Amino acid sequence: MSEQENPPILITIAVIGGTGKEGSGLSRRWASSGYRVIIGSRDAAHAKQQAQMLNTELGAEYVLGMDNLSAAREANLIVLSVPYSAHKVTLDTLHGVLQGKILVDVTVPLVPPQIRTVTIPKGKAAGLEAQAILGPNVRVVSAFQHISASHLKDDDEHVASDVLVCGDDTDAKTQVIQLAQAAGMRGLDAGPLANAVAIESMGPVLLYLNMRYKSKGAGIVITGIDQT
Amino acid sequence: MSEQENPPILITIAVIGGTGKEGSGLSRRWASSGYRVIIGSRDAAHAKQQAQMLNTELGAEYVLGMDNLSAAREANLIVLSVPYSAHKVTLDTLHGVLQGKILVDVTVPLVPPQIRTVTIPKGKAAGLEAQAILGPNVRVVSAFQHISASHLKDDDEHVASDVLVCGDDTDAKTQVIQLAQAAGMRGLDAGPLANAVAIESMGPVLLYLNMRYKSKGAGIVITGIDQT
Repeated sequence: MSEQENPPILITIAVIGGTGKEGSGLSRRWASSGYRVIIGSRDAAHAKQQAQMLNTELGAEYVLGMDNLSAAREANLIVLSVPYSAHKVTLDTLHGVLQGKILVDVTVPLVPPQIRTVTIPKGKAAGLEAQAILGPNVRVVSAFQHISASHLKDDDEHVASDVLVCGDDTDAKTQVIQLAQAAGMRGLDAGPLANAVAIESMGPVLLYLNMRYKSKGAGIVITGIDQT
Repeated sequence: MSEQENPPILITIAVIGGTGKEGSGLSRRWASSGYRVIIGSRDAAHAKQQAQMLNTELGAEYVLGMDNLSAAREANLIVLSVPYSAHKVTLDTLHGVLQGKILVDVTVPLVPPQIRTVTIPKGKAAGLEAQAILGPNVRVVSAFQHISASHLKDDDEHVASDVLVCGDDTDAKTQVIQLAQAAGMRGLDAGPLANAVAIESMGPVLLYLNMRYKSKGAGIVITGIDQT
């Protein structure tokens, strides 16, 4: 992977489940903003293939592909973008290599087929479950649940959706707010990790609104605050 | 109370807890849109006083004040705007007179002093608890939790916040969406009553955002859908 001219910050981001639409869209935006990005997948070959596709689109070798464990090992900030059914098993696998790092949990605890109805998971929120699984040495931040992959395809598209960022560590939240900005969105500090309950459960509501009003990209914007 | 020239619909709305800022602001907007509005309070004299104040502002005798039980008895649609600590006891009191009617639950289950952190109540959401208390003959709709009272003071102010409306009865949701429009806001069908978990739990998040970004009126607008 070639060095970029002006990396904004010395962060390597691993996107676990980065071959999915959402993870892939975020990866491309971060890579084109100068972050070093590693796409992780259970299948290393699939991850390499996806990384190559993004590099072709970006016109440079910005993105690497690896198996999930290697990707998480190489990164300081790990974004978890997997279906809820794979949430616990993935975190159990990555437990060791995540210690001392930041985990950004993008997971919405959808329970198919009722994906448009809020279901509260056992641990109240996927983000809280991640913190419980990983222990206190991992700084878990909950964010990016409301960003429709359909908006991330075009790098120039302004995404009319805020990124609500919850977590118990202020520095980690600040880094994730910067990641949101790097991906073309406004990041807002939305409180402690306990507030992930609200952020995650708005996921099914947006899916319902998409169905109800025949849309693909319903998003949330916070009004009434003076923050860009 | 004088008849209005063009009542938009033959609905009498009772606002239980209507002497509070939120209930009072909604009452004034509905009254000035032509709805018959009754302000309810535990203290009938207080309710009458508040109704008189609104009538003076509105320049006509649009609003009545009564004790909560009488207000709910007179109305076909009852809006519950009380602190969560008074939620159950108020519903127990009104149980009989609410049968066959629509209850619009505005309650956010805040647990002071941690009002900026999401707390999930025993029944998952105040709206779901209301439905469980009242039984199947009351159509419970959850709405209006995100409307800052500060925006309702001025009748002409456009409120930059959508009203997300959850409920299990489509006709009742439609009526509440019309109420939102009558009060100057966009009402959106946000799914079944189970989705009240998301809608209510965004309440503490908005309070957190207000504190964090020194605002008084953070609100939520849904983007990406074509619906006015």
